[in-house]
Amino acid sequence: MNSEIKALLEQVQAGTVSVEDAMLRLKDQPYEDIGYAKVDLHRQVRQGAAEVIYGAGKTAQQIAGILRSLEDNGQKNVLITRLDAEKAAQVNALTPITYYNDAHIAIAGTMAAPSGLGTIVVATGGTSDMPVAEEAALTAQFLGNEVIRLYDVGVAGLHRLLSHRQELMKASVVIAVAGMEGALATVIGGLVDCPVIAVPTSVGYGAAFGGLAALLSMLNSCASGTAVVNIDNGFGAGFMASRINHMEAKK
Amino acid sequence: MNSEIKALLEQVQAGTVSVEDAMLRLKDQPYEDIGYAKVDLHRQVRQGAAEVIYGAGKTAQQIAGILRSLEDNGQKNVLITRLDAEKAAQVNALTPITYYNDAHIAIAGTMAAPSGLGTIVVATGGTSDMPVAEEAALTAQFLGNEVIRLYDVGVAGLHRLLSHRQELMKASVVIAVAGMEGALATVIGGLVDCPVIAVPTSVGYGAAFGGLAALLSMLNSCASGTAVVNIDNGFGAGFMASRINHMEAKK
Amino acid sequence: MNSEIKALLEQVQAGTVSVEDAMLRLKDQPYEDIGYAKVDLHRQVRQGAAEVIYGAGKTAQQIAGILRSLEDNGQKNVLITRLDAEKAAQVNALTPITYYNDAHIAIAGTMAAPSGLGTIVVATGGTSDMPVAEEAALTAQFLGNEVIRLYDVGVAGLHRLLSHRQELMKASVVIAVAGMEGALATVIGGLVDCPVIAVPTSVGYGAAFGGLAALLSMLNSCASGTAVVNIDNGFGAGFMASRINHMEAKK
Amino acid sequence: MNSEIKALLEQVQAGTVSVEDAMLRLKDQPYEDIGYAKVDLHRQVRQGAAEVIYGAGKTAQQIAGILRSLEDNGQKNVLITRLDAEKAAQVNALTPITYYNDAHIAIAGTMAAPSGLGTIVVATGGTSDMPVAEEAALTAQFLGNEVIRLYDVGVAGLHRLLSHRQELMKASVVIAVAGMEGALATVIGGLVDCPVIAVPTSVGYGAAFGGLAALLSMLNSCASGTAVVNIDNGFGAGFMASRINHMEAKK
Amino acid sequence: MNSEIKALLEQVQAGTVSVEDAMLRLKDQPYEDIGYAKVDLHRQVRQGAAEVIYGAGKTAQQIAGILRSLEDNGQKNVLITRLDAEKAAQVNALTPITYYNDAHIAIAGTMAAPSGLGTIVVATGGTSDMPVAEEAALTAQFLGNEVIRLYDVGVAGLHRLLSHRQELMKASVVIAVAGMEGALATVIGGLVDCPVIAVPTSVGYGAAFGGLAALLSMLNSCASGTAVVNIDNGFGAGFMASRINHMEAKK
Amino acid sequence: MNSEIKALLEQVQAGTVSVEDAMLRLKDQPYEDIGYAKVDLHRQVRQGAAEVIYGAGKTAQQIAGILRSLEDNGQKNVLITRLDAEKAAQVNALTPITYYNDAHIAIAGTMAAPSGLGTIVVATGGTSDMPVAEEAALTAQFLGNEVIRLYDVGVAGLHRLLSHRQELMKASVVIAVAGMEGALATVIGGLVDCPVIAVPTSVGYGAAFGGLAALLSMLNSCASGTAVVNIDNGFGAGFMASRINHMEAKK
Amino acid sequence: MNSEIKALLEQVQAGTVSVEDAMLRLKDQPYEDIGYAKVDLHRQVRQGAAEVIYGAGKTAQQIAGILRSLEDNGQKNVLITRLDAEKAAQVNALTPITYYNDAHIAIAGTMAAPSGLGTIVVATGGTSDMPVAEEAALTAQFLGNEVIRLYDVGVAGLHRLLSHRQELMKASVVIAVAGMEGALATVIGGLVDCPVIAVPTSVGYGAAFGGLAALLSMLNSCASGTAVVNIDNGFGAGFMASRINHMEAKK
Amino acid sequence: MNSEIKALLEQVQAGTVSVEDAMLRLKDQPYEDIGYAKVDLHRQVRQGAAEVIYGAGKTAQQIAGILRSLEDNGQKNVLITRLDAEKAAQVNALTPITYYNDAHIAIAGTMAAPSGLGTIVVATGGTSDMPVAEEAALTAQFLGNEVIRLYDVGVAGLHRLLSHRQELMKASVVIAVAGMEGALATVIGGLVDCPVIAVPTSVGYGAAFGGLAALLSMLNSCASGTAVVNIDNGFGAGFMASRINHMEAKK
Repeated sequence: MNSEIKALLEQVQAGTVSVEDAMLRLKDQPYEDIGYAKVDLHRQVRQGAAEVIYGAGKTAQQIAGILRSLEDNGQKNVLITRLDAEKAAQVNALTPITYYNDAHIAIAGTMAAPSGLGTIVVATGGTSDMPVAEEAALTAQFLGNEVIRLYDVGVAGLHRLLSHRQELMKASVVIAVAGMEGALATVIGGLVDCPVIAVPTSVGYGAAFGGLAALLSMLNSCASGTAVVNIDNGFGAGFMASRINHMEAKK
Repeated sequence: MNSEIKALLEQVQAGTVSVEDAMLRLKDQPYEDIGYAKVDLHRQVRQGAAEVIYGAGKTAQQIAGILRSLEDNGQKNVLITRLDAEKAAQVNALTPITYYNDAHIAIAGTMAAPSGLGTIVVATGGTSDMPVAEEAALTAQFLGNEVIRLYDVGVAGLHRLLSHRQELMKASVVIAVAGMEGALATVIGGLVDCPVIAVPTSVGYGAAFGGLAALLSMLNSCASGTAVVNIDNGFGAGFMASRINHMEAKK
Repeated sequence: MNSEIKALLEQVQAGTVSVEDAMLRLKDQPYEDIGYAKVDLHRQVRQGAAEVIYGAGKTAQQIAGILRSLEDNGQKNVLITRLDAEKAAQVNALTPITYYNDAHIAIAGTMAAPSGLGTIVVATGGTSDMPVAEEAALTAQFLGNEVIRLYDVGVAGLHRLLSHRQELMKASVVIAVAGMEGALATVIGGLVDCPVIAVPTSVGYGAAFGGLAALLSMLNSCASGTAVVNIDNGFGAGFMASRINHMEAKK
Repeated sequence: MNSEIKALLEQVQAGTVSVEDAMLRLKDQPYEDIGYAKVDLHRQVRQGAAEVIYGAGKTAQQIAGILRSLEDNGQKNVLITRLDAEKAAQVNALTPITYYNDAHIAIAGTMAAPSGLGTIVVATGGTSDMPVAEEAALTAQFLGNEVIRLYDVGVAGLHRLLSHRQELMKASVVIAVAGMEGALATVIGGLVDCPVIAVPTSVGYGAAFGGLAALLSMLNSCASGTAVVNIDNGFGAGFMASRINHMEAKK
Repeated sequence: MNSEIKALLEQVQAGTVSVEDAMLRLKDQPYEDIGYAKVDLHRQVRQGAAEVIYGAGKTAQQIAGILRSLEDNGQKNVLITRLDAEKAAQVNALTPITYYNDAHIAIAGTMAAPSGLGTIVVATGGTSDMPVAEEAALTAQFLGNEVIRLYDVGVAGLHRLLSHRQELMKASVVIAVAGMEGALATVIGGLVDCPVIAVPTSVGYGAAFGGLAALLSMLNSCASGTAVVNIDNGFGAGFMASRINHMEAKK
Repeated sequence: MNSEIKALLEQVQAGTVSVEDAMLRLKDQPYEDIGYAKVDLHRQVRQGAAEVIYGAGKTAQQIAGILRSLEDNGQKNVLITRLDAEKAAQVNALTPITYYNDAHIAIAGTMAAPSGLGTIVVATGGTSDMPVAEEAALTAQFLGNEVIRLYDVGVAGLHRLLSHRQELMKASVVIAVAGMEGALATVIGGLVDCPVIAVPTSVGYGAAFGGLAALLSMLNSCASGTAVVNIDNGFGAGFMASRINHMEAKK
Repeated sequence: MNSEIKALLEQVQAGTVSVEDAMLRLKDQPYEDIGYAKVDLHRQVRQGAAEVIYGAGKTAQQIAGILRSLEDNGQKNVLITRLDAEKAAQVNALTPITYYNDAHIAIAGTMAAPSGLGTIVVATGGTSDMPVAEEAALTAQFLGNEVIRLYDVGVAGLHRLLSHRQELMKASVVIAVAGMEGALATVIGGLVDCPVIAVPTSVGYGAAFGGLAALLSMLNSCASGTAVVNIDNGFGAGFMASRINHMEAKK
Repeated sequence: MNSEIKALLEQVQAGTVSVEDAMLRLKDQPYEDIGYAKVDLHRQVRQGAAEVIYGAGKTAQQIAGILRSLEDNGQKNVLITRLDAEKAAQVNALTPITYYNDAHIAIAGTMAAPSGLGTIVVATGGTSDMPVAEEAALTAQFLGNEVIRLYDVGVAGLHRLLSHRQELMKASVVIAVAGMEGALATVIGGLVDCPVIAVPTSVGYGAAFGGLAALLSMLNSCASGTAVVNIDNGFGAGFMASRINHMEAKK
């Protein structure tokens, strides 16, 4: 397959295939079947992102295998999400990764240098929302974004949030992470003029119903310019924010 | 039954029954059965409130009948909730009432003069929450409270709410009325140091699910000092706020 | 208030106040209270958007009044959402608006000229999703975006969607509008490398539960780079897409 | 009871009872009561399927006892579902079975030789859906069907699915197994012209709500020719697919 | 496009393209865009079914337009579902259709002659389930199936159902239509040895929750060989049953 | 208090208080407060039942203490529900009880001799429903009822149920215990002419939602003469059935 | 069929068939198929109840037809439920019935004379629960029970309920009808020693969710001796109560 | 920051700042950022309450750190909720606290002397509700309230509740704690004339759905003067009750 890509790139070099055509063709490229998974080798080209492995439900051996397959095809920087500490240690014994304990995330290779339009602010309502927030923040950093963390700025103590008003207003994208009643997303949405990605968390008890209260609250936010991802989906929020922070003109 | 009460009061006057004993006995007093309803004649004594008629599902004739029965027993000031304009006109033709169109409330007799500890502030997130808010506000006024209305101060435009900070901070009780994501209750709860009664409304669409989103949001509010009533239950909020605003020392 | 802004701008002109400081101060500016609503006069400055009126639950007189208040303060271009045809005619009799029947949207003034980074594609699963899609499309156009409509490209006939692959891949932002099982968002999310805003609609019957099936499906999308707005919230999707399409570098 | 059947068959042989009459009478035949279960001895005749034991909640002793009872009545091939590895080992110590670890399924006796109209394709959205898919695939194999497995072909990477288009189009029945947003069933349903059995799985988190999102999505599929079984019910899907794959003309 | 198909068929005739290859290419064929809908012209080839129009939400003019477009491309037999009587009359004034009042279904052209493996039995729990059952029955008839109707055989009067045992046992496919507690599907599923398609209906009140009780009941059926379609989805059941009844060997 | 009761009984003996008056006064009698619980000493008189202790959430010491308090007041026969084996052994070390492992029930003293109008039949859909069924059966036996157990007679194998038709038809009350789709209650309800108490169980998986499917199914049963108790509430069903089986004429 | 029954009865008379055998055989008897319904002619024998017609969704002509079919077979007393006033008038023009407006119930023939063990008390929480309560009360009266109505005795005014304590304690069965929070069933359940049938109603608003709150409340009642029927199912409660009130010894 | 406050207080002393202005300014005061939490140093002034630490999800080290930070700023009395016994011991090893095992609450410093208007009564339906009730009771005591506990007074044994009528009627505020059907709040609400705070608990099983049944029941309470907090939120109830019990006149 590599030779296939090489051939295509040579055609581009030779001017017999335009860059745009080549891009379109690459977006259709296949994957490598390594038995327990179909490793997607050109996602970076096709979707503008490096490969990401969802670690939950995969063995350390499987994860290491996928990492090697990707590395053999030139994909050296890989993000592994939902990976617990024990399994991370097992993977690391097979192939080196850097593990981030708070976020349950590991990175093979290195984080991309910041290349976005501006800063992504990750804000949380309470300290319990931190694991989800860190998943979002590290995902965004891995994908080449500068990240500012504003943790424990819940709206019940509005002065804590308002004291960070300037950081919020200068943000390129804000990721609002909150459980319980999820009001943080609405209040931030009313303060800033950039896109807000709201992440409900399963933090809370009783009628929080595992994040449902925060999810519904955020979907009904009366502040415009807000969109929502799944409960506890820090990765999805970081990924979306990165896409937005890397927008560029398309003719 | 009236003579029964009279006898009791005469005993109190004569000093053979203490005031407290009389109060306790009155709290056990019965009601008048007028066929289609059991009119509760001593609720004012027993629960510290004038009689309230839930208008929905009763005919104009029935409402007028209850009003007359109450009046015959000395209960001249009566609040009628959930009464539409047409039925109100029919009742008015039988016995005089004052109708408040926004709140779907009517009052027989007069409103009580303000007698509470302070002011009750009724705040709403949007203009669509007004009918519920008016139900709360008029209930509180009827029960002898001074009421300040702060409508359309939703948190998506935080400056509108913050510009009324002083009124909020001086309130005795705040009733926070909001639909959609219901964040208003949490933000106000974080600003004030008085009890907050949160009223979710059925305003909104889609995942608002008829007020469920606001209800869950308010129940999970991260601000202490907040309690919640049923969706659209302006009357319940006004009644509860009035009770709190009329607290007095009990030895 | 206008003089206040004028004074500020004169200070900027004189160099005694920096542009950035002025921007920050303007973002804190108040609103005009016209009785039935608190008209937000500086939202365009504060949030980068022209004023939007939620038409449902307001009378034609109230809408016309708000339009005049905005116009007096220099806000000539206003979007009115959730406005039925009859009320639109009544508003038009008071102050001129342009009504879009499919989308239940009216516009006072003119649409902004396209100024975004690229094109926003609005795709729907079926013809019944069109009203929501039009709300999204017209909102985006009003806010200065070029919009391409791909309607009736549901995934049950995958060839219809795939035949529009090039338009999808060149989009700056895609708004995926679908009811029933809502799979459109996931399939598009797997094809493109730009942000996708998913809008569940209440189209469907039975276990569609008023859009709940599509909402849950979209929140759980296995495609990265997708975020979700409320059921039938075409306006919210168009607004969010416009923000993303107008991203620019912030230092 | 065996003699009863024998007598009936002799009557058939003698021509005094027609085959069809005998079939109808056999379908009414009883069962053996072995204390802890009523073993259904003629289900193969009555419902065209060998016996299946639901292993969850039964002890190894009970399962072995049922196996022996069935064997004594001539039922040698038995499928045991929802059986964990430890209990399987205990059963195997009492009476020989073959255990399939991925599917939590064991088989006493042998699998039936393929006898269906064509091939059953079992497709999954991700690797985490494999246990449910294997339950479906092994059930179908046990019941005499040829099975092709297409795992990890989720619609977020549409090219992976489309590269298997020919296998899908030639299938007799497709079993689509997917968690999260469950879009796989709809997309496959739009590609093929054979019956599709959709199996929602409990894979996912947050608003996946234990498979509810996938279930609702599949029930609302806009592709015709699809029907749904319970969440994680691989056995039910395999059984249904086998029935369909063994259809024959009835006059 | 027609010429395109013609060319292909000529190649088949000439032997330069095999029949199978031609089939595969035809399955990829496009559709006609008539403005308000993308008419799918080769669905019969691709999915083995004639065209079906979902009538709800389309005007009589649109439906007639689609019918004409289909007819121009040789598709003369069309099923129109969810069509109320008034709109049916309007369509009929433009282009002739046959309307079935009970089922809210219309047919352009003629029903296909029965060509399936056997008979499809449509059974209902009560008389109120008849509209959904008729939608299923007429869909199956339109697609070339012989249909037997067993209405009002709910399990609360088991003898009514059991008296039809022979018809049930001889069926090729059974469609079990029931609201309220939906037990019909389970009881039939235990009696027959053919595939059962269960259709929950929204018949019932209170805790029937619009068909949810029947839906959950059917999904949890303890009888094997049953699969479920959406609430009130008679069309889907008839379509699925027809596919099953037209199974044939694929090599 | 005992003396109080003694006095009353002496008055009855002397003829100065009628039996009926005594009964009414006894029904108002108080309880003994033993710190961690308010032991209800006259429930047998007041509600016609011996005392029952809900074992879950109480320590062995507390249960033994309550047993002693009851014994001191003449209540020797006590039923303890939801008691696990380990705690039962601890209680037994303090005061003798008989433990029933399947039902998680213990009995202090003896079971009452059968005294009801007839037999109570306890039927289950499957073997997994047995613990709940045993809780119902033992409760009924403890309260003086003859009980017949018909386990594993689920409706998917209707012949198993129908072979017990005579026992069912002769029952005084039937308790129908079933999880999954809960159809057993409806089918039995259609066969018998005595009251049926339906008990949904949490047996099942996926869309069984912890017993919700069976609960809704039973509430919507199309068979008259059926009422439902809480999920897994075998005790409640046995208690209710016993009350019905002990009905006698009241003038 | 009538002759069939006649023959059987003659055999009973002749002593060749025992009464019990005859009863059992009659319980298996069929029904008359009158096209739009299968009229169940021997339900009275089989289930101990006269015929009941569910009026909703049937035309006046159909109802009258069923009445005539029943009358021809000797069933003169028939209960028709869920019948609105207009349709009742139409039926009455065809065949005489007595209509009860409050309960939406009609009766053909006459009510049975009271024959039960004692009195059935029907209690409601409020006046709005009356239609459901009347459906229960009239059903019970039709089936031969003496009924006492205690309406508007909700637990918020406990003295109203307690003043009827004697009637409650002397009841044979109590039907507790309540919407909103449904506490009436629990409080009555704690007062009486007879079976209580709880009927949740859809009375209420907001978080009453159409009767769900009352339903859940009643299912979780901490009072033993209570069972629950579907929301608003007054008929079911009256039927069940009648069965219990007609219990007699079975050997 | 301390000096800042000192300066303000000196201005107050000097008469240059009024007491009210100082209060308002203090309410806006910031917090101390100690890395893992933003410690709110002036909440007592701003919200009239001492600091409260939510213990769940914080390490013993973090809790001790926050305690020291608060102590350094003069906040010596601190309530720690949701703290398990083991972690409490670890905190105690670092800085002295008093642990209350039943309520999972710890207190640093001392409880405030009772200073409220009257007594707060905490009532529970059963013994299993005690942990939540103790959380409420200790919170109220910590905040300076006299508390009376009425445990195990559930409404199924109404006489137990009614025997405490006098304590209830003399209460300043009642906190009604109940799981299962939650009827306690309504019954108490009908007896007393003071505010009632209802706390649903997750006690129960089956259709209790983790407290949902009690929550809905309480929200729909037909007794006026009741408001509800989140499931199991004893702290919130105690806090709200304390606020109400400390009401004083505001001019």
